[in-house]
Amino acid sequence: MAKSPEVEHPQKVFGWAARDTSGVLSPFNFSRRVNGDNDITLEVLYCGICHSDLHAIKNEWGNSVYPIVPGHEIVGIVTEVGSKVTKFKVGDKAGVGCMVGSCRSCDNCAQDLENYCANQAILTYNGEYYDGTRTYGGYSNKLVVDEHFGINFPDNIPLDGAAPLLCAGITVYSPMKYYGLSKPGMHLGVVGLGGLGHVAVKFAKAFGLKVTVISTSISKKEEAIDRLGADNFLVSRDPDQMQAAVGTLDGIIDTVSAVHPLPPLISLLKTNGKLVMVGAPDKPLELPVFSLLMGRKLIGGSGIGGIKETQEMINFAAKHNITADIEVIPMDYVNTAMERLAKGDVKYRFVIDVGNTLKSS
Amino acid sequence: MAKSPEVEHPQKVFGWAARDTSGVLSPFNFSRRVNGDNDITLEVLYCGICHSDLHAIKNEWGNSVYPIVPGHEIVGIVTEVGSKVTKFKVGDKAGVGCMVGSCRSCDNCAQDLENYCANQAILTYNGEYYDGTRTYGGYSNKLVVDEHFGINFPDNIPLDGAAPLLCAGITVYSPMKYYGLSKPGMHLGVVGLGGLGHVAVKFAKAFGLKVTVISTSISKKEEAIDRLGADNFLVSRDPDQMQAAVGTLDGIIDTVSAVHPLPPLISLLKTNGKLVMVGAPDKPLELPVFSLLMGRKLIGGSGIGGIKETQEMINFAAKHNITADIEVIPMDYVNTAMERLAKGDVKYRFVIDVGNTLKSS
Repeated sequence: MAKSPEVEHPQKVFGWAARDTSGVLSPFNFSRRVNGDNDITLEVLYCGICHSDLHAIKNEWGNSVYPIVPGHEIVGIVTEVGSKVTKFKVGDKAGVGCMVGSCRSCDNCAQDLENYCANQAILTYNGEYYDGTRTYGGYSNKLVVDEHFGINFPDNIPLDGAAPLLCAGITVYSPMKYYGLSKPGMHLGVVGLGGLGHVAVKFAKAFGLKVTVISTSISKKEEAIDRLGADNFLVSRDPDQMQAAVGTLDGIIDTVSAVHPLPPLISLLKTNGKLVMVGAPDKPLELPVFSLLMGRKLIGGSGIGGIKETQEMINFAAKHNITADIEVIPMDYVNTAMERLAKGDVKYRFVIDVGNTLKSS
Repeated sequence: MAKSPEVEHPQKVFGWAARDTSGVLSPFNFSRRVNGDNDITLEVLYCGICHSDLHAIKNEWGNSVYPIVPGHEIVGIVTEVGSKVTKFKVGDKAGVGCMVGSCRSCDNCAQDLENYCANQAILTYNGEYYDGTRTYGGYSNKLVVDEHFGINFPDNIPLDGAAPLLCAGITVYSPMKYYGLSKPGMHLGVVGLGGLGHVAVKFAKAFGLKVTVISTSISKKEEAIDRLGADNFLVSRDPDQMQAAVGTLDGIIDTVSAVHPLPPLISLLKTNGKLVMVGAPDKPLELPVFSLLMGRKLIGGSGIGGIKETQEMINFAAKHNITADIEVIPMDYVNTAMERLAKGDVKYRFVIDVGNTLKSS
């Protein structure tokens, strides 16, 4: 449990931070750099609560440096632009996702894959910026960011519901495109109906896919079909249902971060089917290789997406009226929200109303 | 250990068969069907010994029906053609690989993927033919096969060295094509330098790839580089060598059938890298999912190839003078060859000189 050095930047900022592995968040005064030539400054309006935030504030990945101001599903209004800024003007709606920097020179960055930057992308919080200072996220009233890592938000998209798309949305959108699972008429499975899964269903339906939700619990069936528009629902613990669906899916987006068996999912795939993992179980999964050989199947991974594709995803979401299903909360509810999130008690994403409820002390 | 019903077909055939799980092969008189309208009859000249043959004669996969006449790397001369045959004429050189039938009507068959036939391809031996009789392989003097499953052999390709391509060759060629790992300038890793691996190196070099052989033993280095033309050699048990090669490969063809760790191989891949398994370890491997998310990597499988692609592969091999490195043996050496094969004591494939050494009793 490291502690970050205190650095005094010129811009006074107010937010909520976790100070230790208890993960309890409390008001926090800190500072951000002056708005540089390539920077924009955002007045934060909404910030989604991602499950990663919970891991980070409790140091569950072992790399937390306190204090941590979480939040990487950030939307707001541009209040200042640097002299070289071209993408934004003051008053624009803008978003910031998981990254605020990358090397900008490696092969991956050159191909708009900053998320796979060979020299590691700089995370929006709990990261180290180019100048050696720590990065702080969107549970705060103000953010300074290089315009390259800002996303333009079309006027017609609701900012609160769109905020989670900056992480949950791109995490499922990018693999559907990369693995060729966005062609109309395809049949996609979505494993796990949480923050990622429910958005995956929406994108898949907008792509024109047939969608089967696969979940451990029958309790989500009505919602999956009636409200989210899924075509089918499979209870993964029901062997008869699973057997009846063998060989029916072109691909699967698996959003589950808990350890779970792969063979039943692999068996649902057609020949050339693709099982794409976007959740990261903390222990290795068992992979019977023979199940991939029969039917030339693959298991692939994907992690968020590049800035260009994130912009494409937001534009697509605006066009197709896709937002996350959210519960908007005031800033001072955040600790309760974290407790509920840990129990899976949210449909499907908490979004903090930063603009209206974050009061400076 | 089942026993096949005895069926009397009109054509007398002579071969060598295993009668029980001892796996010992001995002379065997049996029969094959009359040459039908769509059939060709082959006088067998050469038959490669595949590791599958060893598994089958010892019932190591639990599905053997005795007697078994193994062999699915078969080449010979066409001695008879049915009235509807169009691909072959008497006197042609022809090959038969792992399959002699499939449903011919499912989606996969319609797309020239008989190897992934939804109703299961009929294997060249230890299979059940359309008429309910057992199939017998190429350790025999004569074979009757539907011309669809026969491969035309160009005149310039040596029949003995080309025989193993019908299984080992297509098994590595097909995934290089399907997974996009055959583009000139790409860097391919080949894990395991045996029957499959040494052919993979040859195809990869003919495609214009840079090739790194990855093996547990330094003993194969000279041969890999000097004789097979590989560019690099990595000892997988040397952490320093492996660390120095992290992130350098576009793809890997993993031919190893023994249980082995995946993470060191995954780490060798670049972003978007592909680890393709063509060997089938008999126990599940451990897959740390996070290693796929970072760098959008995938683990894919592939099993032999369809008939159209097998023909393409043989034509490519003929054009580029690719054959397997073989040790030609007489029929009565086969039991010794099996013992040596079990110990990995062959460079790299045994081929039985059926035409000159199989004498009828």
